[in-house]
Amino acid sequence: MSAHTVEFWFEFASTYSYPAAMRIEHLAAQHGCDLVWKPFLLGPILRAQKLDNSPFNIQPVKGRYMWRDVERTCAELEIPLVRPSVFPRNGLLAARVACAADGAPWLSAFVRNVYSANFAHDLDISQPDVVLGCLESVVSDPQAVLALANHDQTRAQLRSNTDEAIRFGIFGAPSFLVGQELFWGNDRMEQAMRWSHR
Amino acid sequence: MSAHTVEFWFEFASTYSYPAAMRIEHLAAQHGCDLVWKPFLLGPILRAQKLDNSPFNIQPVKGRYMWRDVERTCAELEIPLVRPSVFPRNGLLAARVACAADGAPWLSAFVRNVYSANFAHDLDISQPDVVLGCLESVVSDPQAVLALANHDQTRAQLRSNTDEAIRFGIFGAPSFLVGQELFWGNDRMEQAMRWSHR
Repeated sequence: MSAHTVEFWFEFASTYSYPAAMRIEHLAAQHGCDLVWKPFLLGPILRAQKLDNSPFNIQPVKGRYMWRDVERTCAELEIPLVRPSVFPRNGLLAARVACAADGAPWLSAFVRNVYSANFAHDLDISQPDVVLGCLESVVSDPQAVLALANHDQTRAQLRSNTDEAIRFGIFGAPSFLVGQELFWGNDRMEQAMRWSHR
Repeated sequence: MSAHTVEFWFEFASTYSYPAAMRIEHLAAQHGCDLVWKPFLLGPILRAQKLDNSPFNIQPVKGRYMWRDVERTCAELEIPLVRPSVFPRNGLLAARVACAADGAPWLSAFVRNVYSANFAHDLDISQPDVVLGCLESVVSDPQAVLALANHDQTRAQLRSNTDEAIRFGIFGAPSFLVGQELFWGNDRMEQAMRWSHR
């Protein structure tokens, strides 16, 4: 990891990860930061806190606020938002594909496609055909990538990422790591990038 | 309420309300916003969500992050932070004094004094002598204000504020209201002020 590396920890079900994913590559280029994309699962982390659902569903008053806040955030960034008919959606398969990418150049475009599917087109990203659709414009052989996503090694990589997230004190998404320094939330992205230049 | 009024909803125990309180008057002047200071209690709101303590104490991983994040926030704003030896502190009496002020010009200086006592000097703001100390530099008769703070009418005003907060969907502090539009968190202050000019 270079001095100016920012790790972007994201979960495909996470609302605030959507605007973060859509803008991070551009912002990292502006800040001269190297970006490392780190897919992980929030479910096991929430279950360890004895939460069996999104905190936004468990606390309706917070959920109502979150949806309005995300709506304002997306409007400011001029990115479309259609509230998903199912929330949170299961991002396991898409996260495995992101692990299978192993940092390939097409990863960021795939990640944006998945977030757009979930939060702009209300598609069920747990379904293989939806994930295939997100791969079609970014790789030449989507079926091969999907097969690789289901390999034991890829599954183990995703579990390892999630374990690593827990060790770094990550409890929500999106999160940013600069060395050991943790930043949580789309609204901390600029601060994380400034931090990488300290 | 004028078109450019921003209501600042604050709770003296709340960590993120500290940097918010220290900077809001200056920022409101810069943005040409009228500011209304709204003291309320978070305790009854958390208890209605079946939380009997600060979420930052209930979830240690979130609490560790919060203290580090507040530390970074205060460092950026160049305001001192000493982690209170007791958290959360009981801000009931100070909140009643803030209600007793009834919008008087000294209110903002008193609020800043209480936050400094709690978060810069590690003083027990539940104690009448500490609250008196916060009043001494801002009013001519601190004892009279303290007596007024304990009147039934003042207590009822604080309960009414807290009930109003619940009606507006407030669930944390600091919060900002612009008309019916709710913003939560110190990091939403600028957005709330811009919103007041729409």
